[in-house]
Amino acid sequence: MTLAALLYWTDLLAVAVFAISGALAAAEQKLDVLAFILFGTITGVGGGTLRDLLLQAGPVFWIADTHYLWVCIGVSLGTWYLAPPLRARVRILVWADAAGLALFSVLGTAKALGAEAPMVVAVVMGVMSASFGSLIRDTLLNRSPVLLEPEIYVTAALLGAVSYALLADVPGLDDGVVLLVAMVSAFALRAAAILFDLRLPNYRR
Amino acid sequence: MTLAALLYWTDLLAVAVFAISGALAAAEQKLDVLAFILFGTITGVGGGTLRDLLLQAGPVFWIADTHYLWVCIGVSLGTWYLAPPLRARVRILVWADAAGLALFSVLGTAKALGAEAPMVVAVVMGVMSASFGSLIRDTLLNRSPVLLEPEIYVTAALLGAVSYALLADVPGLDDGVVLLVAMVSAFALRAAAILFDLRLPNYRR
Amino acid sequence: MTLAALLYWTDLLAVAVFAISGALAAAEQKLDVLAFILFGTITGVGGGTLRDLLLQAGPVFWIADTHYLWVCIGVSLGTWYLAPPLRARVRILVWADAAGLALFSVLGTAKALGAEAPMVVAVVMGVMSASFGSLIRDTLLNRSPVLLEPEIYVTAALLGAVSYALLADVPGLDDGVVLLVAMVSAFALRAAAILFDLRLPNYRR
Repeated sequence: MTLAALLYWTDLLAVAVFAISGALAAAEQKLDVLAFILFGTITGVGGGTLRDLLLQAGPVFWIADTHYLWVCIGVSLGTWYLAPPLRARVRILVWADAAGLALFSVLGTAKALGAEAPMVVAVVMGVMSASFGSLIRDTLLNRSPVLLEPEIYVTAALLGAVSYALLADVPGLDDGVVLLVAMVSAFALRAAAILFDLRLPNYRR
Repeated sequence: MTLAALLYWTDLLAVAVFAISGALAAAEQKLDVLAFILFGTITGVGGGTLRDLLLQAGPVFWIADTHYLWVCIGVSLGTWYLAPPLRARVRILVWADAAGLALFSVLGTAKALGAEAPMVVAVVMGVMSASFGSLIRDTLLNRSPVLLEPEIYVTAALLGAVSYALLADVPGLDDGVVLLVAMVSAFALRAAAILFDLRLPNYRR
Repeated sequence: MTLAALLYWTDLLAVAVFAISGALAAAEQKLDVLAFILFGTITGVGGGTLRDLLLQAGPVFWIADTHYLWVCIGVSLGTWYLAPPLRARVRILVWADAAGLALFSVLGTAKALGAEAPMVVAVVMGVMSASFGSLIRDTLLNRSPVLLEPEIYVTAALLGAVSYALLADVPGLDDGVVLLVAMVSAFALRAAAILFDLRLPNYRR
């Protein structure tokens, strides 16, 4: 399997993971099946949609390639039938979400750099790809945004985005290696945050 | 009157109906006249704006044709003076809203197909055109979204969008007939939901 | 200093002022330093971002010129360290915010007219530039939007936008003078509202 194909499949997987978390939010609020699909889709593609609109470098990804939409619809329907066992395995989801975070933050940064965005813009795009889906989901559901919880989440996305943006410029480094290193860094930081309950200090004054 | 002219006037009418519902939301919260215009306009053009931004197939409709803005401003001001009698006739509004829903879902789908969007994308655009204005309105006002109430609403928009997308491909069918059939289907389902209090089952596990 | 340079610096200053208000909202909610940057940036560039997306007349301003992002990041970090003295001087901030409002409403209108937008659209863009940053901030934080408070705020932005749009068409008037007059009008109305607690009548029926 080529690097491009591998990235495509991991991207679809990350969308699926985020879509499940959106559909589970609909389950928590006892909504109907269309709301499962609505929130699954918004959470799955929301961050990347905002990134593509802001970059103005071609069509929005799920309009150009409808597989993303079908994945969101499919896993949202699946969640409708399977939510109780999924929630019983919520730890699996937390880890899948950590993988999605790592993938999206790095892929979002790479897409922005590919569209000639300056480095700081590319980092913003990476963090946004990884985090705005859940932000929109929580805002629409009138929940306190998960993003604002003190656990390290945005920080891990930031690490993935920054390390990719810095390493992508180094001559002689293979792009596949750089992608992998950045994704592993983000995932490792998020994993450490989950395991050891790491958090940034909150404002206390 | 040609089909195009008829569609244009029904489109303006649908925007007006949604704008009234936005201004009435401002009335409920005892806001000032500018907030009436703000929420009337957001609710009237919000769904179509998101559709046009995502499709990237030309300017946003209310920037290309300012009649839409004037309609929103006009009916919002009208609602400021007329809200009490309007609310007394809230059943009229529910029916007008059902008409707006039917029109927007089908017209949004048609616009997306006209911009060469794949069928599933066009259906998403139709549902979005019909529903995101009220979703944004409720989110900004910190209300629980009307969309999430169990009454059949999104389902009717989905029926209008899907039936148009399927029938538009059938060779030999007149486009005007297809538009009419799809709009009537959406309206009929929403009407049945209003009259008989139909709803999708909520998630209960 | 040329007019263009003066406008650029005042624009950066207005972004900084709005970013501080966003970071202070994060301080109120005792969030972490990344949330300070997140809300500072969203509030600082949110209104102009929506304006640029809707106008479709070139790249989003902070993607084309990264100084805006750095300003948001810098003042958000500064607020992390300096929030208590800043809040003690909250009256200074109210006045700085009034200046930001005046600048953004007029500059947003000017940018839209420069992109050939019709006058009513340009006025909407000006009001949006000045007000949507704080609207998004409050929505994400689940706060009641400051915009909806009865104090005259949107009205002042509207005055700046309308007076610029009307005067910009008058032949023989120097553009610098028109900009200044419109900004001073908006600032003066907002200042009067602050000093004398002016408000539009709320809906009471």
